[in-house]
Amino acid sequence: MARVAVDLLGGDEGAPVVADAIAAVLAGETDGRTAGSTPQSIQICVVGPRDLARDLLAERGIDADAHGDITIAHAQESVPMSSSSHDTLDMLRERQDLSSLVGVEELRSGRADAFVSIGHTGATVGASAFGLGRVRGMGRPGLAVELPTAHGPVILLDCGAAPHATAEDLVRFAAVGASYARIVGIDSPRIGLLSIGGERGKGDHLRKQTDIRLAEEFPAEYVGAVEGHHLMAEGRADVIVVDGFTGNVALKSMEGALRWSVGAMGIAYGSIGPAREVLRSTHLLSGASLLGVDGNIVVGHGASRADEINGCIRRAAMLHEGSIVESVRASVSGLPELNARGELA
Amino acid sequence: MARVAVDLLGGDEGAPVVADAIAAVLAGETDGRTAGSTPQSIQICVVGPRDLARDLLAERGIDADAHGDITIAHAQESVPMSSSSHDTLDMLRERQDLSSLVGVEELRSGRADAFVSIGHTGATVGASAFGLGRVRGMGRPGLAVELPTAHGPVILLDCGAAPHATAEDLVRFAAVGASYARIVGIDSPRIGLLSIGGERGKGDHLRKQTDIRLAEEFPAEYVGAVEGHHLMAEGRADVIVVDGFTGNVALKSMEGALRWSVGAMGIAYGSIGPAREVLRSTHLLSGASLLGVDGNIVVGHGASRADEINGCIRRAAMLHEGSIVESVRASVSGLPELNARGELA
Repeated sequence: MARVAVDLLGGDEGAPVVADAIAAVLAGETDGRTAGSTPQSIQICVVGPRDLARDLLAERGIDADAHGDITIAHAQESVPMSSSSHDTLDMLRERQDLSSLVGVEELRSGRADAFVSIGHTGATVGASAFGLGRVRGMGRPGLAVELPTAHGPVILLDCGAAPHATAEDLVRFAAVGASYARIVGIDSPRIGLLSIGGERGKGDHLRKQTDIRLAEEFPAEYVGAVEGHHLMAEGRADVIVVDGFTGNVALKSMEGALRWSVGAMGIAYGSIGPAREVLRSTHLLSGASLLGVDGNIVVGHGASRADEINGCIRRAAMLHEGSIVESVRASVSGLPELNARGELA
Repeated sequence: MARVAVDLLGGDEGAPVVADAIAAVLAGETDGRTAGSTPQSIQICVVGPRDLARDLLAERGIDADAHGDITIAHAQESVPMSSSSHDTLDMLRERQDLSSLVGVEELRSGRADAFVSIGHTGATVGASAFGLGRVRGMGRPGLAVELPTAHGPVILLDCGAAPHATAEDLVRFAAVGASYARIVGIDSPRIGLLSIGGERGKGDHLRKQTDIRLAEEFPAEYVGAVEGHHLMAEGRADVIVVDGFTGNVALKSMEGALRWSVGAMGIAYGSIGPAREVLRSTHLLSGASLLGVDGNIVVGHGASRADEINGCIRRAAMLHEGSIVESVRASVSGLPELNARGELA
């Protein structure tokens, strides 16, 4: 059993789509995918304005006060999606009733096993780092996504939590990414470094440094540099690490290419339904897992629909069932300590 | 009329596929696209081993010595595709009979108007920089590609020629990218900076510096930061500039996503033909244009097929017909001079 706190606020489509997803989870509907093991039952803690939560659930035939699998944790509002990094940090410091802070507090206090939000990513990442702290040995936390390929999933991290990641951060992403890979059924994950060209020593200073360190720490698992087209097209590596700036650009570029493809395929085949289904079948919009903080956090795309939020909730439950935090802790426990800049202390 | 030198060597599929493309161009076959204006006639200078060129053309019913639109410039071999940056530079310094050097020399001497190669990109870029020199006012040259969107093409540069590009290089990419955009029919190109999030000042030091400089140099055209999904999914900007490391990762990530999509759509719709046609209809594999050197250079993907090489040859002719070098020269002539590191002198 997993108790998942779900942020009702912050998505592009508003709270109703999140309420749809919660109703679907309570009704036992899956998101149609089979990523990892899914727990038998999920309890939901709705994080948001209490009256709004009650009303939206009632409209979906759920009595929040009577239903055994529902609780509500009141939160007044969320960080606006357009909020700058600076304003987001200010809000997190000054307000206690933000949904990202309330959700993380549910997790920290032990009342929930995981927290899901499709709101402001920086707010969720920031609230998690402040409220839960990092796993000992970890540098910056990283956001991991599963990408579909013809050979099974590839884990890409970081996708945007750590745009200033250092080589040591990337070494830790490799360790925790491998832990994640095992939870989704990849027994002996191979590790790759996203760069431009397979030859050793190619790329910028960060890539050269990271290449050396990955070869030192993971002599058996590290396969060397991989390129952008290996993310979805070839089975060169199972876990691909990159700084959050490049990783975010790569992920969003692929998302845009796939969305373009849906439109173009719809025209080419004369019907768009199957193309939309292909996009849905990817995990691109069913959430990124924040690895390296002391708790289970899934952030979803702001534009997520109900079935994608359902996928995020199931992914969060999977992280709990798979004890990802313990695996992450074990995977980085042997690595050298870092200073506040993410460099060797 | 355009005289295009074509590297017979260096592609993944060997010289025959290049010969197929040359035969198709001579027969007046287009590549099925309508990117920009195409000149009425194209003459080809085949760059490669003389006997091989003669034989391959003869097999395709073309008598190289008698055909009025064919010449051959002998080159012994090409830089191997797996050659490291270091080895490539050594080869370019020590050998005179490499196809990349011979092709560039055809251009420099005035015997050809453009040069196309699907061989080692670094070899073509290096040979061009050495043999043709940079346009005055330009920093590092940049590789520009056209990406398809529902709103018309988006120009992305740099895609890999300048992984260490500075903010001043990116300012020049914006200028020359806008020149290129006008040649493909975009009259008032809007300029965007590829980053992670639309807010000003987000991203790393390079993005912050570039954002300030683009706003100074292009107050009317610069629309600010754009994200990866704007490359193919939305019409936020017509010319999107980025350093060559990030640009190469983005381009190859999109290529991989589209190739994955072809397989997945083929299964979803029960036939793969139309999906393959959609991928072909993109310009992703029909060549990148090297902007900022004093000559017309198109580099194609090593895995190009004949119709894609045909597209590269037509693109090269289009650059000549559109006088891109003169436009590039004019567009950077007002910008401050740079030192050898690509910084303000």
